Amino acid sequence: MHASVVRASAFVASIFALYIAGAMLVPAAVDLYYGHSDWQVFAVSAFTTGAVALTVAAATRDRTPIRSTRLAFLVVVTLWLTVGLIGALPLYAASLNLDFASAVFESVSAVTTTGSTVITGLDDLPPGILLWRSILQWIGGLGVIALGLFFLPMLNVGGFSFFRIESSDIEDRPFERLSSFLHALVGIYVVLTALCAISYAAVGMRTFDAVNHAMTTVATGGFSTHDASLGYFQSDAVLWISTVFMILGALPFSILILLVVRGRLDALRDPQIRLFLAYVIAFVLALAMHRRIVDGTPFGEALTSTTFNLVSIITTTGYASEDYTLWGPFAVTVFFFATFLGGCSGSTSGGIKAYRFLILARMLQNGLRMLVYGRSVQPLRYGNRTVDEEMLRAITLYVIGFILVWVAVTLALAAGNLDMTTAITASLTALTNVGPGLGPIVGPAGNFASLSDYAKWILSVTMLLGRLEILAVLVILTPTFWRN
Amino acid sequence: MHASVVRASAFVASIFALYIAGAMLVPAAVDLYYGHSDWQVFAVSAFTTGAVALTVAAATRDRTPIRSTRLAFLVVVTLWLTVGLIGALPLYAASLNLDFASAVFESVSAVTTTGSTVITGLDDLPPGILLWRSILQWIGGLGVIALGLFFLPMLNVGGFSFFRIESSDIEDRPFERLSSFLHALVGIYVVLTALCAISYAAVGMRTFDAVNHAMTTVATGGFSTHDASLGYFQSDAVLWISTVFMILGALPFSILILLVVRGRLDALRDPQIRLFLAYVIAFVLALAMHRRIVDGTPFGEALTSTTFNLVSIITTTGYASEDYTLWGPFAVTVFFFATFLGGCSGSTSGGIKAYRFLILARMLQNGLRMLVYGRSVQPLRYGNRTVDEEMLRAITLYVIGFILVWVAVTLALAAGNLDMTTAITASLTALTNVGPGLGPIVGPAGNFASLSDYAKWILSVTMLLGRLEILAVLVILTPTFWRN
Repeated sequence: MHASVVRASAFVASIFALYIAGAMLVPAAVDLYYGHSDWQVFAVSAFTTGAVALTVAAATRDRTPIRSTRLAFLVVVTLWLTVGLIGALPLYAASLNLDFASAVFESVSAVTTTGSTVITGLDDLPPGILLWRSILQWIGGLGVIALGLFFLPMLNVGGFSFFRIESSDIEDRPFERLSSFLHALVGIYVVLTALCAISYAAVGMRTFDAVNHAMTTVATGGFSTHDASLGYFQSDAVLWISTVFMILGALPFSILILLVVRGRLDALRDPQIRLFLAYVIAFVLALAMHRRIVDGTPFGEALTSTTFNLVSIITTTGYASEDYTLWGPFAVTVFFFATFLGGCSGSTSGGIKAYRFLILARMLQNGLRMLVYGRSVQPLRYGNRTVDEEMLRAITLYVIGFILVWVAVTLALAAGNLDMTTAITASLTALTNVGPGLGPIVGPAGNFASLSDYAKWILSVTMLLGRLEILAVLVILTPTFWRN
Repeated sequence: MHASVVRASAFVASIFALYIAGAMLVPAAVDLYYGHSDWQVFAVSAFTTGAVALTVAAATRDRTPIRSTRLAFLVVVTLWLTVGLIGALPLYAASLNLDFASAVFESVSAVTTTGSTVITGLDDLPPGILLWRSILQWIGGLGVIALGLFFLPMLNVGGFSFFRIESSDIEDRPFERLSSFLHALVGIYVVLTALCAISYAAVGMRTFDAVNHAMTTVATGGFSTHDASLGYFQSDAVLWISTVFMILGALPFSILILLVVRGRLDALRDPQIRLFLAYVIAFVLALAMHRRIVDGTPFGEALTSTTFNLVSIITTTGYASEDYTLWGPFAVTVFFFATFLGGCSGSTSGGIKAYRFLILARMLQNGLRMLVYGRSVQPLRYGNRTVDEEMLRAITLYVIGFILVWVAVTLALAAGNLDMTTAITASLTALTNVGPGLGPIVGPAGNFASLSDYAKWILSVTMLLGRLEILAVLVILTPTFWRN
């Protein structure tokens, strides 16, 4: 490992830190406008971060950065770590009185768009803090799409290379190329957020709530400005609007871009979209019907609450409109499994994601055929493309890494005396970047505040692992990575 | 699918049914000796089974059986299904008053060496029934070793082909060949059982208990003649003897055979044995030390009870000496993960098994290296052998099948209104053929009796799926299998 690689990744991180410092001026302005003294915290944080970032940038600037896979891995991990830590600064310094572990947990939960919170009494918090949480989550959402579209495919992590933007889409119009995709991405993201905010406001949400929730909805993040989450608004219209935009946030942005920039309607035929919508519908119908038949909940009522809360979990957003764990054991089990699912590649959602399930199902199907015939009878298909060995290996690797980390984190949490349900679901919800787990502590009616610092640190690392598709972090932890 | 294939598998099953009918005469004789009227039940069951089996054998006998992979799959599944159903006959007809679902559950739990029971009041049962449960489990243990040594390698299921008995071991002494291996297997199995019974008796168990427990220990089955399982004897010596023989039952019998028949000490260097012993020791030490440090349990006491109960779960036996779920949340979580492990290939144990974990770990290690270097740097090793793509595919397929079945069964159980912990662990313990799950119903202090018939049928099928390494059953369920 060349020292220049470490320097180069520090340089990239410091540039991003400057952007984050700039973003801090927004809550500073809002708190100043509302006359809350926290504006000073944000201003000082922005100034300090900016100064340190500039110093680091100057010190690590290098005329000849070495381009390598290792640099890319290191940049990705350093970036998320840096933004997570810097985002925690104002949370730690503000009038909230959070300890350091909690502030980092909250910030990492934001930038990874997880949405687990350690803060209670959200309804009475000053606007700056609330807005900062939402902004971090919104930036995190944008970051993870960029990661899925540009970085992970390059690094060949978790099967993302399969969704590389085809060179024909970039190269036949040299003027547009990659930067036009980046602009389109940001444009679509901003427009979706604006549409979501307007829709929320149209059904009666006040502007501040509408803006905050729009940012955390499209980012499939799940932070709210109220302890009762979206349940606070007591409005079916809010729940349905939220459902629509959570689903949009979980769609592959590469396809939204192709659709908007190129008008390529055929892009919508991506099989992962169909599978994603299929399992959303299957889960919702199964649970809504079960509630209708077993508990006698009127179907209309069951449909709204089931759809909203399940879509919230499946898209890895993490809002709740009520404590769905009171819907009985079948509901609890359905929500548990929903925590794994996730949306599409190159979206803001986390989890295992539809395309991986699709390929795993095809692998099983093909494997069983091979057992009968003793040989491979046909290549694996994904839509009209053939899935190569590289993709199969990448997905297998992801699943192994996922299970390994999940088991290790669960054992570590249980060793800190958390009950099994809490340990298993807290580690899972962190790894899939969903937000709520199950049980009284981390469930939809609970709060991560009461966890020990030990558990908060472990879960912060787990959220980062999940956000970077596990392997990008595991790679950094191998001795091979640091060997020359 | 030729009709002749179905006929041929019916023929094989009927021959085995004759053996089972013969085995029923043992409990008949014992009940007659002790003067219990159940002897008639066993005698009539033996006669009926024998008559039906002979009729089926005569009707399906065929001079030209077609040898094919499909026949082998069908034979394996039909065999276990037949033995499971026939084994239930005397349980259903005897003075126990079991309903049919319960009798089948108990019998399938026996022949799959799972050891979950729906019978309470074992201590007061007539000897014939107790012995029949143990005999079924003992036969099941022998069957599963034969399956792992001869059938699954041939069928290429779950990576077993890797442990095919090397042709050099068979062919250089033509007189011995396969049948000598089969004789050696039965010989070693009988000797181990006898040694275990003698050891139990030597530390004070009465003969009947010693024989029954010896049969269910070496088979890593876990049925007991007492509701309190081995806890009944209040003897550390019993627990340690049991520990030793459970571990022996979980070793690869192919290697025991090579050791005994050929004196090949080098066979013991199989890496799966090392990994199996390593995770047993790691789990035991972690939990015993946790109990010492957190709960203040004296280390000696903690070591005995931790070793026995964990070895019981890891080897998929399922005895308990006490309710270990009272040892706190860390213990519960450790026992949960121990339920997955299992022993070695070609042993009586179930679960995922050491060699699969070894290969999965190597896949992860290699995959992370590939992410850094962008190419495969070295082939996967298992001991001094190279692991081929076929093996990797077989293990991946097994893991996918395992997870799919586990999730489906859990959802099905939860839909029947079982709480999540019970649903998750009952399906898991059935799939890994362990015995106890977690929670008040299926935990070590519970009993499967209170489950609904619906749950019992589902779990019976799940135990068979687990015992046949999942894929052998899933194959039969595909349309491809039945197509001509």
